[in-house]
Amino acid sequence: MGMTMTQKILAAHAGLKEVKAGQLIEADLDLVLGNDITTPVAINEFKKIGVNKVFDKSKVAIVPDHFTPNKDIKAAEQCKCVREFALDKEVENYFEVGEMGIEHALIPEKGLVVPGNVVIGADSHTCTYGALGAFSTGIGSTDMAAGMATGKCWFKVPSALKFNLTGKPAKWVSGKDVILHIIGLIGVDGALYKSMEFVGDGLNYLSMDDRFTMANMAIEAGGKNGIFPVDEKTLEYVKDHSTKEHTVYVADEDAEYDAVYEIKLDELRPTVAFPHLPDNTRTIDEVGDVKIDQVVIGSCTNGRIEDLRAAASLLKGRKVKKGVRTIVFPATQTIYLQAMEEGLLRTFIEAGAIVSTPTCGPCLGGHMGILAKGERAVATTNRNFVGRMGHVESEVYLASPVVAAASAVLGKIAGPEDL
Amino acid sequence: MGMTMTQKILAAHAGLKEVKAGQLIEADLDLVLGNDITTPVAINEFKKIGVNKVFDKSKVAIVPDHFTPNKDIKAAEQCKCVREFALDKEVENYFEVGEMGIEHALIPEKGLVVPGNVVIGADSHTCTYGALGAFSTGIGSTDMAAGMATGKCWFKVPSALKFNLTGKPAKWVSGKDVILHIIGLIGVDGALYKSMEFVGDGLNYLSMDDRFTMANMAIEAGGKNGIFPVDEKTLEYVKDHSTKEHTVYVADEDAEYDAVYEIKLDELRPTVAFPHLPDNTRTIDEVGDVKIDQVVIGSCTNGRIEDLRAAASLLKGRKVKKGVRTIVFPATQTIYLQAMEEGLLRTFIEAGAIVSTPTCGPCLGGHMGILAKGERAVATTNRNFVGRMGHVESEVYLASPVVAAASAVLGKIAGPEDL
Repeated sequence: MGMTMTQKILAAHAGLKEVKAGQLIEADLDLVLGNDITTPVAINEFKKIGVNKVFDKSKVAIVPDHFTPNKDIKAAEQCKCVREFALDKEVENYFEVGEMGIEHALIPEKGLVVPGNVVIGADSHTCTYGALGAFSTGIGSTDMAAGMATGKCWFKVPSALKFNLTGKPAKWVSGKDVILHIIGLIGVDGALYKSMEFVGDGLNYLSMDDRFTMANMAIEAGGKNGIFPVDEKTLEYVKDHSTKEHTVYVADEDAEYDAVYEIKLDELRPTVAFPHLPDNTRTIDEVGDVKIDQVVIGSCTNGRIEDLRAAASLLKGRKVKKGVRTIVFPATQTIYLQAMEEGLLRTFIEAGAIVSTPTCGPCLGGHMGILAKGERAVATTNRNFVGRMGHVESEVYLASPVVAAASAVLGKIAGPEDL
Repeated sequence: MGMTMTQKILAAHAGLKEVKAGQLIEADLDLVLGNDITTPVAINEFKKIGVNKVFDKSKVAIVPDHFTPNKDIKAAEQCKCVREFALDKEVENYFEVGEMGIEHALIPEKGLVVPGNVVIGADSHTCTYGALGAFSTGIGSTDMAAGMATGKCWFKVPSALKFNLTGKPAKWVSGKDVILHIIGLIGVDGALYKSMEFVGDGLNYLSMDDRFTMANMAIEAGGKNGIFPVDEKTLEYVKDHSTKEHTVYVADEDAEYDAVYEIKLDELRPTVAFPHLPDNTRTIDEVGDVKIDQVVIGSCTNGRIEDLRAAASLLKGRKVKKGVRTIVFPATQTIYLQAMEEGLLRTFIEAGAIVSTPTCGPCLGGHMGILAKGERAVATTNRNFVGRMGHVESEVYLASPVVAAASAVLGKIAGPEDL
C-alpha cells in the first residue's frame, strides 16, 4: 500500500522508508514556532529539560503577534520573557514589533517554510503552511519546548481524507468559501487527527493566498494538517520568498484514504459560517437578514494582499454603513506597505474603515475590536466559538473578504452581488 | 482693573460685564465633551438629573478614543453604553470607530471649537482648545452630566500667569520643548487653578500645531486652562475647519497677572521630562546615557501632521535601533490619510516603526504598547507619572517628535543633532 503526501514527508523525516497510518514515529523538525502566548509556557518547560541552547538557532521562530503591540502589563511581561529568551538563545527568527506580522503570514513570507518541511508550532493554525506542500501542525507548549531542545517531535502518522477539487470557482468564490463549504460538509470533527489532502484540477484556480486560507482552516475540521501538492504556483512562491532547499513529495497512486470527497468548485457559492461553529455554514443565498455591528478583515486566515485587494475592490467609492465598525488588519508589515502602495489602505480609510498595525487582534478576543454583549461581527477569521471575539453573548459570522466588505457596506450579512 | 483674555470670555458667557479672579460664576457652554471612559459615568449621573434630552444636540460631543478599537469586553460595554446614549439623545457629534480620532485633535479638526468659546470636557487635556483662543477646561463626569443637561457650568474665575514668549526658536525646538521648559520652570503645581496666558512676538514662530501641544499641557502645570491670542494663524485655521461664528477676545492692557514669565524662545534647547513628573525636565544636552525599549509618537499632545512630518524627516532613510519598538499614532483619520499621502507612513514602516489606527493607546496605560517592568519609553505624550504607560517600575520620558525619532534610531534618549 502506498503513502499519502503527508505520510511520505513524515517517513522521510523519521528516516523510515515507509510509515503507516496510526504508527508512532519521531520526526526531525525543520522549524519550531511559538508566539507571545504559548512561548512563555514553553520556555518554562524548556528550562526543566536542562539544556542550555536550542537545537538549531535558525530553526526556531518566535513571533509575538497575539497581544502586541502590548495590550496590557501581562502581555508586556509575556513579550519581555520571550524577547529575553530569544536574545539569550540567539534565536535567529525572533520578530520584534516593527519587523512583526501575524505568524502564519509572516513565516512563509520570510521563506522559513518550504515544500517537504516538517514544522510544529505552538498555535493551532500552524497547519497554514500545508499550502506550501509542507507537513505543518499545531502542538502544545510542552512539545514546543521539547522541539526547541531536541529538534524532534513524536507523531502518530495520520490517515487521510482526499478532497478532489474540480472546476473553476465563480467570480466571488474564494479559498475561504471552499474551506468553509468543506467544513460545513464534514463537520468540525470530520477530519479528526487526519490529514486533509487537497488535489484536483480545481487547484489551478486557487492562488497561493487561497491555499494558505484553506490549509489554515484544516484544524477547524479537526484535521492534523491540510496539504496541497507542489505545483508551479508553489514553486514560484518559494522562489520569490526563500533560499532554503526544498523537496517535493508526491502522494503514491495507491495511497490509502479514509474517504474521498468530490468538491465541484464551479457549484460553490459564497459561504458564511454562522455562530457558534465553523461547520454551521450557509450559502450567501440562505443568510436571511442579520444586522451587524462590526466587520473584521484580516487575520492569519485572510489578511494577505489578495484578501485586502478583494475587500478594497468592493469598498472603493463606497462607504461602510454608519455604525458598523470596520477594522482591517494587514497581516504583515510587508503586506501593509504593499497595500499602501496599491492605494488599498486609502480606499479603506475613505470608506470609513480603519487600518490596524498587524496583530491577531480581536480574532481570539485579544484586543482591537472586542464585542460587547449582543453584538455581531462578520469576520474573515477562522473561529466563531462562543465568546471568541468578546462577550459570551456576542456572535461571529465567518466569511470571505468580499462578503465581509459587502456586509460592511450594507450593515447586514450580504454578498458582493447585493451591492 | 482690566480682565485677562480668559476672564473676558468667562464674563461674556456669564452675561456679566466684568468678572474678577476668585468670583464664582455660571457660564453658558458652547460644547460639552466626553470620551469612552468618562461618558458612561456622566450618563449615569445624567439619568439621575431626570431630564430626557441634552440641552443642545449640536453642542455635545462624544469621542470613544481611549480604549478603542475595543480593547476588551469592559471597553466594548463602555462604548456600547456611550453609543446607545448618543443615538437615543441624537447627539450630533458622536464619532464611531472609522470617523474617530483622538478627541483633542478631532474636535478642532471638525471645527467644533472656535475662538471665544467656553468648552468643558470630561478629560483633563480638554485645555487643548485654548490654542484657538477659547476657554476650555477639563471637568469631572458629574459636571459633564450637568453640562449636557443644562448647557451651563459653574466656574471659579481663575487668576492668570502671563508667559511672554520672545525670539525665534532654533531649528529643533518645537512647542513641546517650550511647554516642557515652562512646566520645568514653574513646576507641576506652578499654575494651579490659574489660566496660563501665552503672549509675545515669539508666537509668530509657533504654528497652530505647536500651540495645540502647548495648550494641551497647561494641565501638567496644574493650569485651569492655557490660552493663546487669536492671530492670523488662528483665523486661517478656523476658516479652514469651521463654519461656526467666533468672537475674538483680547486681554485688557491693565489686566492683572499673578506673575509674568519672560521666555526667550531663542535660548531654548530640545527638552525632555524625566520620570516621574512632567516638571522633571532636562535639556537634551543633560540627558546622559539612557537606553530605551520603546518610542511612542502620537497622542493628543503630538499626533498631528506637523508632528508626524518632523518625526519622519529624521526617520527617512534611517532604521530604528533593533529592539526599540517604535509606535506611531496619527491622531485622526484625516491626519492618517494626509500622512499616507505625504509618504510619511511609508517612511515610518520602512524605518521599522509601526503605524496604529488613531487611539489614545499606551499614553494612559490603555493598550497598544504597554511597558513591562523595568522598561523605558520616550514618548511624545503628556504625562510620565509612575506606571502611566504600564508597570509601576517602568519609565516614561516626555519629549518632542524629533527627540523621539532620534531616540528611536539611536536606542537611547538623543536629540536630532546626535544623528
